[in-house]
Amino acid sequence: MSTLSEQAHRDLAAIREQKPLVHNITNFVVMNTTANTLLAMGASPVMAHAEKEVEEMVSFAGALVLNIGTLTDAWVDAMVKAGKKANRLGTPVVLDPVGSGATAFRTASAKRIIDEVKVSVIRGNASEILSLRSDDSKTRGVDAVHSVDEAAETAQVLAGELGTTLAITGPIDLVTGGGRVIRVSNGHELMGYVTGTGCAATATIGAFLAVDQDPVAATAAALAFFGLAGQRAAEQAAAPGSFQTALIDALYTITPGDLAEGARFDP
Amino acid sequence: MSTLSEQAHRDLAAIREQKPLVHNITNFVVMNTTANTLLAMGASPVMAHAEKEVEEMVSFAGALVLNIGTLTDAWVDAMVKAGKKANRLGTPVVLDPVGSGATAFRTASAKRIIDEVKVSVIRGNASEILSLRSDDSKTRGVDAVHSVDEAAETAQVLAGELGTTLAITGPIDLVTGGGRVIRVSNGHELMGYVTGTGCAATATIGAFLAVDQDPVAATAAALAFFGLAGQRAAEQAAAPGSFQTALIDALYTITPGDLAEGARFDP
Amino acid sequence: MSTLSEQAHRDLAAIREQKPLVHNITNFVVMNTTANTLLAMGASPVMAHAEKEVEEMVSFAGALVLNIGTLTDAWVDAMVKAGKKANRLGTPVVLDPVGSGATAFRTASAKRIIDEVKVSVIRGNASEILSLRSDDSKTRGVDAVHSVDEAAETAQVLAGELGTTLAITGPIDLVTGGGRVIRVSNGHELMGYVTGTGCAATATIGAFLAVDQDPVAATAAALAFFGLAGQRAAEQAAAPGSFQTALIDALYTITPGDLAEGARFDP
Repeated sequence: MSTLSEQAHRDLAAIREQKPLVHNITNFVVMNTTANTLLAMGASPVMAHAEKEVEEMVSFAGALVLNIGTLTDAWVDAMVKAGKKANRLGTPVVLDPVGSGATAFRTASAKRIIDEVKVSVIRGNASEILSLRSDDSKTRGVDAVHSVDEAAETAQVLAGELGTTLAITGPIDLVTGGGRVIRVSNGHELMGYVTGTGCAATATIGAFLAVDQDPVAATAAALAFFGLAGQRAAEQAAAPGSFQTALIDALYTITPGDLAEGARFDP
Repeated sequence: MSTLSEQAHRDLAAIREQKPLVHNITNFVVMNTTANTLLAMGASPVMAHAEKEVEEMVSFAGALVLNIGTLTDAWVDAMVKAGKKANRLGTPVVLDPVGSGATAFRTASAKRIIDEVKVSVIRGNASEILSLRSDDSKTRGVDAVHSVDEAAETAQVLAGELGTTLAITGPIDLVTGGGRVIRVSNGHELMGYVTGTGCAATATIGAFLAVDQDPVAATAAALAFFGLAGQRAAEQAAAPGSFQTALIDALYTITPGDLAEGARFDP
Repeated sequence: MSTLSEQAHRDLAAIREQKPLVHNITNFVVMNTTANTLLAMGASPVMAHAEKEVEEMVSFAGALVLNIGTLTDAWVDAMVKAGKKANRLGTPVVLDPVGSGATAFRTASAKRIIDEVKVSVIRGNASEILSLRSDDSKTRGVDAVHSVDEAAETAQVLAGELGTTLAITGPIDLVTGGGRVIRVSNGHELMGYVTGTGCAATATIGAFLAVDQDPVAATAAALAFFGLAGQRAAEQAAAPGSFQTALIDALYTITPGDLAEGARFDP
């Protein structure tokens, strides 16, 4: 068993024991499934976005999850306020830049959050992550990335430039803090037919960060866990409705031992 | 069969026959499951929060459900406006003070609603309910409540002080209007792994209040019904995803006779 | 096989192949199920409501779906802005006037959208659709419509007056652009026990419009497809929770050939 697998084992056991509170400021589409994802794995979700309470709420949390899926300026203001408070408290912050790169408003909002908040981990697909490059970035754009190896190299450079851990998810997930790039090959294609699986993966990273101070290892463990749940679900279900139900079930039933055995890391 | 069981029987039969409209101003996380909960049991949900229409909408409703789970000031304003109109019409109002006691904003908002609106029933867990005490309350705080008996005594006094019916839910639910305290011991621990089961229980109380003018009996019946659905679901499912599906199914399939037989009241 | 069935076959095959992006500005209750509905059938949903990005977002979309289920003025402003942009681009717009006729605010908002945006299709129940009549309409009101034949005649006249395609859904769905009235008799009564099935049907019309320029045929095909999924689900499930899961599954598994065979058109 690799060190990463051992750490994944410890992380999931810690979540089940500590039930960390994860504060989410997320989008309307996935609030319900995000909460159910966190509950099923053993964590404690809370959703709160009012500027009047986000600082107080995040002070109880083990991690803060920011997601710009159905953003408006008022919501981004609340995210920044909560994020700054989390930074002062040393609480890890995860960002899901949903749709960054698709509209100028989303790209600008994601970049604003990154500028104003120290983010521990950013999870997105390749186009979302690569949209976060600054103008003077030495990395290539999404249209110039044609293979997993090129994506890995780009992620590595960009993580260094942004000073954060990046998780580019896809058939093979890439996780890097600027050093080595861990590849996680758990998951199942039916996850693409259920809304919010990416957002739920981000929330899962939040739960793992709440119990593990190493952002690269915690993120890799979280993605392996969530992907493994997808594989388990696909053994039970062949279509998206029953697959989603089975996915939530799997998040509850997978043991730390199952995770250590089933995680597919290629460091 | 106890009087309470008979009343629960009549209430559920009345919901199935009358399909009462329940107007919900509730949080983003649970809107979907609240609507499905009400539909499955035979009621008619409507969600509307615009200040421009809440008074008109509540005028068609048999009950109004207020829930501060993802509150902002604008939403609380709408809740108060709808609540005052409901009061003028004699329509019962149920409040779910989600997270009251956790942040100052939630506590203040819950207290504002109670101050400005005559609320028939408030449902929450012990810490939410006890956070509603005024400064000169004769009750003890949540940290000083160490047993179900102490909680029952506290609920009784607080219900009298607030002039409402209180439902403190947990492994054993307590319902009181200041007089006797009814204990309801239906339910299943998997309900704690699905988001919004508390909120759905509150909406269920709304449906029962729409057909039963006795708030204590209606609330006890609603909690027994919702808890019994959880027990039924747990016979079908051992993990939260399939449990939630089975819970909605049970709300649809449980008959008034099943409820009268399965309700566990300890008055 | 009728021409309509052949067109339904082609439409569903085209959705599976092209995965059209459907931009939804919809209500909080159904955002999740709307997204899952579109994903399951093979389309690509996006939700975005910020005035700052709706014009850019809709420019990528094959169809725009507007739904006033939990409206406020700010959301209706965004709908109008997105709708006008869609009109300039020639992108079809579908409107779901949820609750129009129930409150003055909803009726006024639905009429505002129709006045300011060229809407290709409007889907609602009879009372919602008939609430859209102008004061000088030659049609009868909902209280004067007592049969499917009277509803069909009314829909036909109103579609001509509004210059759009109307879909009045119920046990038998009626689709007309002012000429012939197509009757679609797919569906199952359990659909009425799951929230958002009407809204999901509207989103399905959006997906079909994205691949078929004939609004009447596309709407009839969409309603037959969605109703057929309900029939399939009812073969698997007898209560609303498991029915909803099976409905999403059916949207994924029904083939174009199944649709052509199972669609029940009565032109």
